[in-house]
Amino acid sequence: MRVLLRVAYDGTNYSGWQIQPNATTVEGRLIEALENLFGRKMSIIGASRTDAGVHAMGNVAVFDTDTRIPPEKIAYALNSRLPDDIRVNESVRVADDFHPRHTDVVKTYRYTIYNDTFASPVNRLYSHFCYGHIDVGLMKKAAKYIVGEHDFTSFCAVATQVEDKVRTVYSLDVEKEEKNICITITGNGFLYNMVRIIAGTLLNVGKGIIQPEDISRIIKGRDRQLAGPTAPAKGLMLMEIKYKELEQ
Amino acid sequence: MRVLLRVAYDGTNYSGWQIQPNATTVEGRLIEALENLFGRKMSIIGASRTDAGVHAMGNVAVFDTDTRIPPEKIAYALNSRLPDDIRVNESVRVADDFHPRHTDVVKTYRYTIYNDTFASPVNRLYSHFCYGHIDVGLMKKAAKYIVGEHDFTSFCAVATQVEDKVRTVYSLDVEKEEKNICITITGNGFLYNMVRIIAGTLLNVGKGIIQPEDISRIIKGRDRQLAGPTAPAKGLMLMEIKYKELEQ
Repeated sequence: MRVLLRVAYDGTNYSGWQIQPNATTVEGRLIEALENLFGRKMSIIGASRTDAGVHAMGNVAVFDTDTRIPPEKIAYALNSRLPDDIRVNESVRVADDFHPRHTDVVKTYRYTIYNDTFASPVNRLYSHFCYGHIDVGLMKKAAKYIVGEHDFTSFCAVATQVEDKVRTVYSLDVEKEEKNICITITGNGFLYNMVRIIAGTLLNVGKGIIQPEDISRIIKGRDRQLAGPTAPAKGLMLMEIKYKELEQ
Repeated sequence: MRVLLRVAYDGTNYSGWQIQPNATTVEGRLIEALENLFGRKMSIIGASRTDAGVHAMGNVAVFDTDTRIPPEKIAYALNSRLPDDIRVNESVRVADDFHPRHTDVVKTYRYTIYNDTFASPVNRLYSHFCYGHIDVGLMKKAAKYIVGEHDFTSFCAVATQVEDKVRTVYSLDVEKEEKNICITITGNGFLYNMVRIIAGTLLNVGKGIIQPEDISRIIKGRDRQLAGPTAPAKGLMLMEIKYKELEQ
């Protein structure tokens, strides 16, 4: 059977999701836990290969097994074999041909900016610190231009090999909660570094470096140089991945 | 002149506030930064000697100096000399005889319980994880019995040498915010482990082990054995210390 895992992690101490030699990764740790549990070589397919330092509340991975352990109990068995900065929140059986990257999806990311005179020790690993005035009203205005179906070449790391850079952003909300500015974005998929470049661009809007109206021009230009910088990894959190196929 | 510092820290990597040989402490790090800045032996007086693993948004310390650096600039100079899990949020001149422990004060602590099936990687260092049903309504009821002036012997670590165990709790709020149960307590001072024992007792009320009405009996009994366990340090945050004397 194929089992789907919903995985949360603190990305601080990991070289990202994807397994690689001589580095500690979330996928690597999960595979170790699975191999320890089932006593044989295992592999998994992840939904989102988050970068080093990026956090997740709900990344998704699947694996195949012929175990007799009830699928919903696998989360408990894995958690007792995982470090406490990785937790499997759910394990559930899915169709044998379910693929977490080749299935219609709604992904939600949150980017957090901590805006104060000095950084906060307690939030330092989970937000990007910025001092000085940031105009959240301008950021909200700019966000409206990003919502919808667009070619997001300007918001994609240059090295990306993906051909089709058209994605749909369903919603993009900017909210101030005390000293945190939270950017929450929902879409059918995101290009490499896309959320971090959108966050960096919105931040430049908030600082008055880019005008909200400039965003359409930046999108139309299809040139990474036009957008703002890539905001740091630690402010990014993969919140949730929803599969319509699984919602029935 | 005497300078007051408002200090925030992530207590995870410290053996508490108070300086001690062969251990890394918040006070120790602050003194190192002060000595590096002023080029001579320094000492500080702290308001609250938080335990190992306890966090703070606003602990207070004072020190004496004859520097010509404007007091409000000292925060910047110290932060560039401190690790990123300690931050001085404010530095301000106070009267030469101001003492952070012998002055009328209102202290606010927050204790956070994370209530879900599995622990959360991202909250793991700043909350106490509890699975299973916790009745927040019962906790709110119990909290009312704790508010007011009482002899808090039952809520004080046995080893404490303080004679007078009468303290006044001005407010005690229990709120559920998504999966976090936040206990916020304000008072004129707290005995050793008092907030953590109150949190542990309220948690036992939420689990149905103690009835809300039992709280008056527990207070009247003046016996540490009657109250619940001391909740773990990492869930505790010293939020703020207010001095009436400084508010004019």
